[in-house]
Amino acid sequence: MSIGTEFSDTFVPVAADSEFSVHNLPMGVFRKGGGPLRCGIAIGEEILDLTELESRSLLKLPSEVFQNQQLNGFISLGAKYWRSLRQQVRCLLSIENRLLQGEELRRCCFVKMSDVTMQLPVTIGDYTDFYSSLEHAKNVGAMFRDADNPLLPNWRHLPVGYHGRSSSVVVSKSPIRRPMGQTLNKESGKPEFTPSRVLDFELELGFIVGKDSELGQPIPVREAEDYIFGVVLVNDWSARDIQKWEYVPLGPFVSKSFATSISPWIVSLSALEPFRVRGQRQDPPPMYYLDEGPRSSGLDCSLEVELRPPGVEAGTVICCSNTKHLYWSMAQQLAHHTVTGCNVKVGDLMASGTISGPEPGSYGSMLELSWAGSQEISVGAQVRKFLQDGDTVTMRAHCQATGYRVGFGELSGHIVSALHAHPGSNP
Amino acid sequence: MSIGTEFSDTFVPVAADSEFSVHNLPMGVFRKGGGPLRCGIAIGEEILDLTELESRSLLKLPSEVFQNQQLNGFISLGAKYWRSLRQQVRCLLSIENRLLQGEELRRCCFVKMSDVTMQLPVTIGDYTDFYSSLEHAKNVGAMFRDADNPLLPNWRHLPVGYHGRSSSVVVSKSPIRRPMGQTLNKESGKPEFTPSRVLDFELELGFIVGKDSELGQPIPVREAEDYIFGVVLVNDWSARDIQKWEYVPLGPFVSKSFATSISPWIVSLSALEPFRVRGQRQDPPPMYYLDEGPRSSGLDCSLEVELRPPGVEAGTVICCSNTKHLYWSMAQQLAHHTVTGCNVKVGDLMASGTISGPEPGSYGSMLELSWAGSQEISVGAQVRKFLQDGDTVTMRAHCQATGYRVGFGELSGHIVSALHAHPGSNP
Repeated sequence: MSIGTEFSDTFVPVAADSEFSVHNLPMGVFRKGGGPLRCGIAIGEEILDLTELESRSLLKLPSEVFQNQQLNGFISLGAKYWRSLRQQVRCLLSIENRLLQGEELRRCCFVKMSDVTMQLPVTIGDYTDFYSSLEHAKNVGAMFRDADNPLLPNWRHLPVGYHGRSSSVVVSKSPIRRPMGQTLNKESGKPEFTPSRVLDFELELGFIVGKDSELGQPIPVREAEDYIFGVVLVNDWSARDIQKWEYVPLGPFVSKSFATSISPWIVSLSALEPFRVRGQRQDPPPMYYLDEGPRSSGLDCSLEVELRPPGVEAGTVICCSNTKHLYWSMAQQLAHHTVTGCNVKVGDLMASGTISGPEPGSYGSMLELSWAGSQEISVGAQVRKFLQDGDTVTMRAHCQATGYRVGFGELSGHIVSALHAHPGSNP
Repeated sequence: MSIGTEFSDTFVPVAADSEFSVHNLPMGVFRKGGGPLRCGIAIGEEILDLTELESRSLLKLPSEVFQNQQLNGFISLGAKYWRSLRQQVRCLLSIENRLLQGEELRRCCFVKMSDVTMQLPVTIGDYTDFYSSLEHAKNVGAMFRDADNPLLPNWRHLPVGYHGRSSSVVVSKSPIRRPMGQTLNKESGKPEFTPSRVLDFELELGFIVGKDSELGQPIPVREAEDYIFGVVLVNDWSARDIQKWEYVPLGPFVSKSFATSISPWIVSLSALEPFRVRGQRQDPPPMYYLDEGPRSSGLDCSLEVELRPPGVEAGTVICCSNTKHLYWSMAQQLAHHTVTGCNVKVGDLMASGTISGPEPGSYGSMLELSWAGSQEISVGAQVRKFLQDGDTVTMRAHCQATGYRVGFGELSGHIVSALHAHPGSNP
């Protein structure tokens, strides 16, 4: 590990390729051993313990917010205090500030990342999942509807989305049990009750709402980013066979709600600011309430998905994508979500939908990578069409600047086998 | 008002046709004037103030739960304490018990219903809406798909449902703003941004989850009622024109999430026990995980919807239905919801979907009552196809026994006009 002070302006060792440079400062919740949940900020390979700093009156905030088991209380303080905390932490971590470099504080206020388990960083009220990648929507449409005309008529006019299940949102490293459920047996033409045979991941970016909006009051698209606290990586696990049978006419339901994983660290919009790029050209031009004007609403963030079969030491990267492939921006998603008057609340999670690029290697789901199971995906010495028991899926995302990175930490999940079918279950 | 002691075994006056007999004892949250939120139980035209009783140590429960602003804390105590509270309240209200009949306690522990505003009784984590009425699904299928083959293939095999939005669930009497949104202009073939022209109600029954389940562990159908705290009336407001344009392929989204209203009182399963009836015959027989056995899983509860145009004194009942028309039971809904491993939490709301009977006068939405706008619905001296600004929709539901009723109180909502379209909005 190189001591990255050259790039990072902090006394904490930060490698040049660390996702947690001093320019990032993402927030999360952790537990050390059997101790209580604590709030922290990632820096290098350590966590700055905000709960400890607050207990020692080393933070200036209007109320105690880090004695809670999630970040909702801090987020509710508002953007003024998000910026203030960021400044305070930059100052505390700086080389010039000797305070935390003293032996006792250095030991008490920092925890090694490798010594903790990360927890869900926020209590999520509602979870919404969008469908904002043009390539993904085209791929799905081409596979299941019409290859010549893959997009449904509404797709280019509004960010299609649906409500997901918040209770089953889990943090990275939570095991994912293969779901049992109803699927259609193609031979008999009848439904049967089986473990899902077509288990998949979906590579997504999500954001955490940072400010309540009022019921009945749409959020103007050009103010929408004021309602975003920060960004997480999302894996929207999907049982494609259950989904296919259940989804008409009201959309995906139990085929998705068994689990959704998010990365433990929430990266602020401030940290992502240097990586803004122009959004995709939208044709037709968006309606007024979705028109962001000339702002750069895209984000240049590299994404990858690694699949590691059981018993294999090293995983294989099977997808390299980028958030710049998203057609609809986070601000447009929020503006559309609230256009009929729906309110949002601090802690709500909104995810982008699968992020696929134009190249086959950039497709963000196995459904697309295996083209509905018609092609094999090479995974080291093995092949896959969909996920098998024991497989571990790890997603990573980072923005690269000259000399430093801003990343999300790993988002991983390990597939455990299904519960046995109920005895006497009838097909 | 008749003094109903003959039927009600309580010193509190209860009319024979009161929905709040001593056999009901539904729970809710109220506010008197500008005071704090308080928990209570409806009896006749009064509310027994549980917060006051608890403050005076007149209830035996393992912890203080009625100093909260919602019932989640009480519900989390578990079914043992739901039954215990019910017994304690029956005793406190009985003619033989003079305690609350003393002048000071009579005055302090009871509030007139007409003096309070009711609040949302629980903090709702997730809201799920099903589609469990056969007649409703057939009607919608016949109107929009195929009159000869109206049901989709999955409908008789599983309780179709989708995730709704919990943040916009509001209590009865909350105003409902007509939503703005994208609709398809049939003439131009292009979407436009307008107030919804096809605003509708949906008459539903919902239940409040009373017990957490574990992620990854399906709830067996025959244990599912243990997870139900009680039942509410639900109006799932729907903007049909917005819905029609947005809903493919992921289901209804902003066309529904602008508001969902629930009745202020939660009626316990204990109070509904005498009104159980056999459920509808299910053909094909349900799969194992949905098979309730011989239990009577239906409920005989009369439902009505009254529509009152602005400036008109008395409303007109435009729908008389009954919960016995539901094909899928609450237990089946819960078993299906969790079959892939999705967990549920105390306070979750699950609604039945529109409850339509076989007769046109029993259809639970204006979409069906006006048959997609092809027929006029008589509303006193006026007619309607869908809701107009100023209309008030009031739903009522009660179970009738010999000499007493168990009801839900009114669930009403008043349509207010849309916000103006954004200046310069383009169609």
